[in-house]
Amino acid sequence: MFEIKPLDRSKEETIQNKIDQKSKPPGALGMLESLAKQLALIIPVDDKIIISQPTMLVFAGDHGIAEEGVSIAPSEVTQQMVMNFLNGGAAINCFCRSNEMAIEVIDAGILLPIEDSRLTIQSLGKSTNNFSQQAAMSVEAVEEGLLLGAAVAKKNIEQGVNVLGFGEMGIANTSSASAIMAAILNLPVSDCIGRGTGINDQAMHKKRSLIEQAMTLHQKNMNTPIGILACVGGFEIVQMTGAMLKAAERQCVILVDGFIATAAALVATKINKNATDYMVFCHQSNEKGHQLMLRHMNAKALLSLDLRLGEGTGAALALPLLRAAASFYNDMASFESAGIETV
Amino acid sequence: MFEIKPLDRSKEETIQNKIDQKSKPPGALGMLESLAKQLALIIPVDDKIIISQPTMLVFAGDHGIAEEGVSIAPSEVTQQMVMNFLNGGAAINCFCRSNEMAIEVIDAGILLPIEDSRLTIQSLGKSTNNFSQQAAMSVEAVEEGLLLGAAVAKKNIEQGVNVLGFGEMGIANTSSASAIMAAILNLPVSDCIGRGTGINDQAMHKKRSLIEQAMTLHQKNMNTPIGILACVGGFEIVQMTGAMLKAAERQCVILVDGFIATAAALVATKINKNATDYMVFCHQSNEKGHQLMLRHMNAKALLSLDLRLGEGTGAALALPLLRAAASFYNDMASFESAGIETV
Repeated sequence: MFEIKPLDRSKEETIQNKIDQKSKPPGALGMLESLAKQLALIIPVDDKIIISQPTMLVFAGDHGIAEEGVSIAPSEVTQQMVMNFLNGGAAINCFCRSNEMAIEVIDAGILLPIEDSRLTIQSLGKSTNNFSQQAAMSVEAVEEGLLLGAAVAKKNIEQGVNVLGFGEMGIANTSSASAIMAAILNLPVSDCIGRGTGINDQAMHKKRSLIEQAMTLHQKNMNTPIGILACVGGFEIVQMTGAMLKAAERQCVILVDGFIATAAALVATKINKNATDYMVFCHQSNEKGHQLMLRHMNAKALLSLDLRLGEGTGAALALPLLRAAASFYNDMASFESAGIETV
Repeated sequence: MFEIKPLDRSKEETIQNKIDQKSKPPGALGMLESLAKQLALIIPVDDKIIISQPTMLVFAGDHGIAEEGVSIAPSEVTQQMVMNFLNGGAAINCFCRSNEMAIEVIDAGILLPIEDSRLTIQSLGKSTNNFSQQAAMSVEAVEEGLLLGAAVAKKNIEQGVNVLGFGEMGIANTSSASAIMAAILNLPVSDCIGRGTGINDQAMHKKRSLIEQAMTLHQKNMNTPIGILACVGGFEIVQMTGAMLKAAERQCVILVDGFIATAAALVATKINKNATDYMVFCHQSNEKGHQLMLRHMNAKALLSLDLRLGEGTGAALALPLLRAAASFYNDMASFESAGIETV
């Protein structure tokens, strides 16, 4: 479905040498050095890192399991927040403006549709099914969703974007992300759940029971990433996964936000492991499972600001670090050019 | 010497209410919420956070103790790096350009002076004395240095700056910072030292012995912050301390960089505890003692990127987070204005 080339590592040594010649002790720029190396492998132009039209994709979708009360808010809030995104009033809008990042909002399947020319509408349905009772969606819906997500990424990349951020909105989608994580990593549900945007003990207990119930119910259909998405996924997660895979195929940088976006990234790497090469993990959220997922992907997130919002906020906040990495890689003097003694 | 008002906390509740009304779950923006609250207390204009002409001050000074081989590079490199700053080729220049921050470089006392109109020259001497043998400088030099540093901050603030970053350059200045930390916090030297920009085991052992020797030698003269600066300080650290105190006096935001800038911040808070209210701790470096100092000041740094360079790099990299905090505080929709149901 996606043909993703692993990064061409033949230039890695040249890139590392260039970084080591910069007027600073070796390794002194820490994580920015590994970030620069990755960017120089993904988006080099004449040996420089050129970031072009960075754009945030925010995928919205509703979840049948919300009817069980596993979130602090009802599904109607998804629609209201999508309107807020379109009107420029949400946190992600503020951070995109502040960091000069474009934004596109996608209805991947929200309960209460919105007709608005500012919204990219490619709905897979009015919310998924309650996955504690039945499959969230059909396998056909997953396949369609992956292609629809891919199309959004492709359109942006063909317009000149080479850095795509991935954010989401969907009441109850941490439940879906936790279930995906438990199924893919074969971990107990208790290691994969957290309080989302802030549920109490009772709702937390219920969330755990429902996901455990789903794990048993769907066990025989969750042997593949596509099967897992069909059983316990979300429309926004499926489209995000497809968009990430297309971004990797087209050698575009993938900025992965928090817990839910990381679950989509995890599925994407299970579908095609080469996708990991293009991913920059931006924020480590407080969700308990997030650290485990990152560890599984050998990833260390750039930021850790105790955010628990989603929307792509962590990814948008990390963009200036990519610009800083590009800046030092492209423009910083070498020891030689600056006339500095080396030891 | 400095008259610093504590922040007027009477508006704190109003500010917190404004943050809690934003269209997000309470606390969901994590550290950006506490940052916004602090900024709204320090630099409000009509209930908005207005960041004006953010500027990085890089103080350079040389250290007599460098002659003992406690750093990976000789003192001559301080001058070479200052030239690099002036020519725009260092990491701090790249990050300031990338994040739209002005920069001013100050010769607080480097070994090999530079005549250059782009450099602010207010040298306290050609490097301090070797503090393992004698006091680094006189008490008079400390007092003069605090005033000279204050003058740089004052000049910038009077030109309209309301956010000042604090960076430094000085071969061997982690030794001075470690000694200051050990003296102020009354901790064993072994808890206060690290590898700086990357010394080996042998140099590390020597660094420790020399600082321990200094602690004994100067014990009776290190009962006050000024005394500590005179015994084991550095010209750039002293001027940075004075500049921070003046910034606090004038209600300007203080962006504290890594280990050495934090040592200056620690001295500043010992001279006047109210200064802490104006400090934003930007980066937690790998230096072992840094975490201890931050803990002592009840501070949590915004970034943790494994930087070990100084120059103000961590502070410059954190500036976009201040802009993001201002952006959500100023412009994000409330639940009411966005028409979102609350729970």
